[in-house]
Amino acid sequence: MHKIEFMKPLILITNDDGITSKGISVLVEVMQKIGEVVVVAPDSPNSGMGHAITVDATLHIKKSNIFKGVEAYECSGTPADCVKLAKHHFLKGRKIDLVVSGINHGMNASISVIYSGTMSAAIEAAIEDIPSIGFSLNDFKYDADFEHTKKYIKKIALKALSNGIPKNTALNVNFPAKQAEPIKGIKVCRQNNGFWLEEFDSRKDPHGRPYFWMGGGFVNREPENQENDIWAIENNYVSIVPCHYDMTHYQAIKELKKWKI
Amino acid sequence: MHKIEFMKPLILITNDDGITSKGISVLVEVMQKIGEVVVVAPDSPNSGMGHAITVDATLHIKKSNIFKGVEAYECSGTPADCVKLAKHHFLKGRKIDLVVSGINHGMNASISVIYSGTMSAAIEAAIEDIPSIGFSLNDFKYDADFEHTKKYIKKIALKALSNGIPKNTALNVNFPAKQAEPIKGIKVCRQNNGFWLEEFDSRKDPHGRPYFWMGGGFVNREPENQENDIWAIENNYVSIVPCHYDMTHYQAIKELKKWKI
Repeated sequence: MHKIEFMKPLILITNDDGITSKGISVLVEVMQKIGEVVVVAPDSPNSGMGHAITVDATLHIKKSNIFKGVEAYECSGTPADCVKLAKHHFLKGRKIDLVVSGINHGMNASISVIYSGTMSAAIEAAIEDIPSIGFSLNDFKYDADFEHTKKYIKKIALKALSNGIPKNTALNVNFPAKQAEPIKGIKVCRQNNGFWLEEFDSRKDPHGRPYFWMGGGFVNREPENQENDIWAIENNYVSIVPCHYDMTHYQAIKELKKWKI
Repeated sequence: MHKIEFMKPLILITNDDGITSKGISVLVEVMQKIGEVVVVAPDSPNSGMGHAITVDATLHIKKSNIFKGVEAYECSGTPADCVKLAKHHFLKGRKIDLVVSGINHGMNASISVIYSGTMSAAIEAAIEDIPSIGFSLNDFKYDADFEHTKKYIKKIALKALSNGIPKNTALNVNFPAKQAEPIKGIKVCRQNNGFWLEEFDSRKDPHGRPYFWMGGGFVNREPENQENDIWAIENNYVSIVPCHYDMTHYQAIKELKKWKI
């Protein structure tokens, strides 16, 4: 009798908090149950990196033994660099079945998707035609509790592998922080309309020169609406927003054409 | 008889090539003819910075006398940081009528809008409800010829000030490099569907450790189409793409809801 061998899916893992963060170790643990895992992640925190890439400097890499039995590399670049390096160098010629990024320590809902290194890695994968998912937890703590996210991550990743993700789309998945009540379920929804209202904390360095810390709070422009990711997370649901990378505002094209310039 | 005084519009200028680049000096020259100009720009090149912001480090600023008669500051942060600092610190309480970013040395059409520091500044302004325009020239040279762009920049900025820009939208304006023939006109169009196919140039440092330079070429997925920015620029038109920051792929929401998870 022949033994039937199933090919395990090839899963690339990255993040923006850096290879030593707790969130990525949870993602590695879950993904090892579903596929062959390769990790290429930043060697230091890259929060707020947006879709930065390293074009004017060199990229440095080092093999890492941080995850037992997992091929892993740490990279001096950004999350988007890590995906590019994985696809075009470490895994050149191999088909990557899924890119997962995270789990981010901190929420990446609403406008934060634009600033998020976690999501930039997922969107970079989508640009390169690889199904991808960014995972984030609404808890900034370095030792945040990720236990309640595991079964959802596995479920969503398996669905993505079996059903596929709409072409050139990355999923932005956000989890509520661990609460006394279990998560109520999953909401597929749209990006909330909101922004960060900055306040700059102005200080003087020991030489009397000014410097700033960026701070501030999130402003929800549609607190009554229930169809968006912020509402879902605040109400103890997992939010999934499918994201594309066509920034064109199609309706505005018509208006601008009226300018007749 | 009373003398009627017109308020000059307040125009904030930034870029991603840094405050000493030629492109920003051209933008200052043109904008001085239409309004009161304040410059807050990075103190060093920020190309490929995407929508990065400085959340885990301090921001440093210095007053600059680089532009005669113009209030200017150089900042250690990213282009998006510069817009935030200008709005919430340097120009706090004042209404900014227009943010212009650039002129970038190099094109920011198609998918490059995602990687572009120039456009991230413009999009940051749009998030903050300020009309904004990013300008880029399809010429990387430090001493690129910007002469042919000036009359178009003035025209587009004046139209934006008089007509307004659709809400929460930033204009991505790209100019062809200077050619023997004059520019044919302006095309309002959408973002081209393309991507950067990377090739990593792998080298060894003097200690034998590997490092990489990211390189590669642009791949146009729709070379026959004439409704997009790459086509316009390649055919000696100025391209204008209105950009928003809602990354939601609305059509994909329906598909994902069928997953029933």
